[in-house]
Amino acid sequence: MKKIVIIGEVLAEIMADKIGEGFREVQSLTGPFPSGAPAIFADQVAKMGQPVSIVSAVGDDDFGHLNLDRLRQDGVDVSGVFVDKERPTGSAFVRYRENGERDFVFNIFHSAAGRLNVTDTVKALLDSADHLHVMGSSLSSPEFVALNLRAAEVIRGNGGSVSFDPNLRREILSAEGMAEAMSRMISMTDLFLPSGSELTFLTQSTAPEAAIEELLERGVQAIVHKRGADGASFHDKLGTLAMDALTVKEIDPTGAGDCFGGTFIALWLRGTGAQRALRLAAASGALAVTKRGPMEGTATPTELEDFIRSIGESSR
Amino acid sequence: MKKIVIIGEVLAEIMADKIGEGFREVQSLTGPFPSGAPAIFADQVAKMGQPVSIVSAVGDDDFGHLNLDRLRQDGVDVSGVFVDKERPTGSAFVRYRENGERDFVFNIFHSAAGRLNVTDTVKALLDSADHLHVMGSSLSSPEFVALNLRAAEVIRGNGGSVSFDPNLRREILSAEGMAEAMSRMISMTDLFLPSGSELTFLTQSTAPEAAIEELLERGVQAIVHKRGADGASFHDKLGTLAMDALTVKEIDPTGAGDCFGGTFIALWLRGTGAQRALRLAAASGALAVTKRGPMEGTATPTELEDFIRSIGESSR
Repeated sequence: MKKIVIIGEVLAEIMADKIGEGFREVQSLTGPFPSGAPAIFADQVAKMGQPVSIVSAVGDDDFGHLNLDRLRQDGVDVSGVFVDKERPTGSAFVRYRENGERDFVFNIFHSAAGRLNVTDTVKALLDSADHLHVMGSSLSSPEFVALNLRAAEVIRGNGGSVSFDPNLRREILSAEGMAEAMSRMISMTDLFLPSGSELTFLTQSTAPEAAIEELLERGVQAIVHKRGADGASFHDKLGTLAMDALTVKEIDPTGAGDCFGGTFIALWLRGTGAQRALRLAAASGALAVTKRGPMEGTATPTELEDFIRSIGESSR
Repeated sequence: MKKIVIIGEVLAEIMADKIGEGFREVQSLTGPFPSGAPAIFADQVAKMGQPVSIVSAVGDDDFGHLNLDRLRQDGVDVSGVFVDKERPTGSAFVRYRENGERDFVFNIFHSAAGRLNVTDTVKALLDSADHLHVMGSSLSSPEFVALNLRAAEVIRGNGGSVSFDPNLRREILSAEGMAEAMSRMISMTDLFLPSGSELTFLTQSTAPEAAIEELLERGVQAIVHKRGADGASFHDKLGTLAMDALTVKEIDPTGAGDCFGGTFIALWLRGTGAQRALRLAAASGALAVTKRGPMEGTATPTELEDFIRSIGESSR
């Protein structure tokens, strides 16, 4: 079984109970939930039965141990998670607005998760991994960008592969040196997983079809284009495959894309056909939105099959 | 009217709804509440109608603005609160245990509140203040200690006075240079407000009576010894005055000591007699424990009188 490694933030998430605007008033909250996009991804990969390590840092506080306990319990290798004795675990307060948008109060950059701790354990993890998954949202500083680029080089040098989910915040993309770094990242990407308009964020082409062609020409083996409620499509040199989204009652979309990616990549690495991988990934994303809490919707293959049956869809 | 200044943390506080141990599980929470011992103190002082400024820093986020809005609304001068564009507002998660002890998850040292920003506005504030209140819990780094010592010198040099609530965490007291710094602070203290065993933390004498004598000999004008449910006593060269605590149903003791101090100091600065000041301060602390949320129990003199009447005590 190929071993996946991911570098990025582990967070505690606190959710507002009531829809509304932000956190300028006392209100009912629920948390802390284990969170952080890379952590959700890793948890889903582990539930798929694929070996996975996360490189991160948490504080030596309840929020850190809550996350470590959950990740360990679900099978994620947390030997690369540095426990920072000084800084607190990163946190995110999230409140949904009436229109589905979210307000946040973040503590990430100055938390444990904001600092790199490239210990010998981390170096050994990166050296022994078969696949690196890169999350744009975790490329929050030049050091994180540099570590991901170096890891991609090492792992590809060892015959491994790289997937890239470019969920980049706009302010990150315009930072100095970032466009160049992202161009290098694309040149090392085997599997590209943009959402919506991210498909053309890093291409010369602004039209979707041309962007796909350009990416495949630059060496990307396959593209999974996530389009939320509009489904997803898979593109490689052989052609295109489209998949409708599964219709579910949305409770909390946070983490759905990370679950989708974790499921797809775990299956893709073990040679599952694109159609089936796309179907289970879609189920994984759909199941995630039905659960409150960012990491509460991760699921095993059996749970995914059961879920697909429960909503009356065939899993083949 | 004499103007009070205080230097220290402004925080958002999130309270667990259920008694239990810590934050390693998802649970119901309520918050963010405006908080931070110096902020609670300042809010109570302002409600007493005394001019008061707080020197602090918050992040440019909802938690920071929640605090600024509340303090402004209650009459605290927040011109000395630096709005840090990079760091988040400090936060504290608090959960009560069955035995009344509290578990915390803090983000203070690496938050906006952990950094000093001695702007020209702050310098002018310190220069123009008539009284400095020093909180031991805010002496979290050598810079904060140094700024408080410097402010005490400046304000006393200008003919002002200093009060000192030595609510020092044990680990802070044993830090390098701290014993010496605290000795200097005592030598500049006019009004000393220790709680319980803190009375003898900074004295050679270990017996209460001897400690009081020692402090008065070192130049402290008056000592208010807070003993929680056992009441409080006032000591100066003329003698001793004791006051029973008011009996109330305890909902949330956080902030009670800060309210007690704010009320006492505001009255003391305007020459109110010790007995009446002690009585209203006790009412202020008692009222605070009946309200959920650290700053929710601050009160005006009228509200304090009404409260005393409501629990069947005379306010004289």
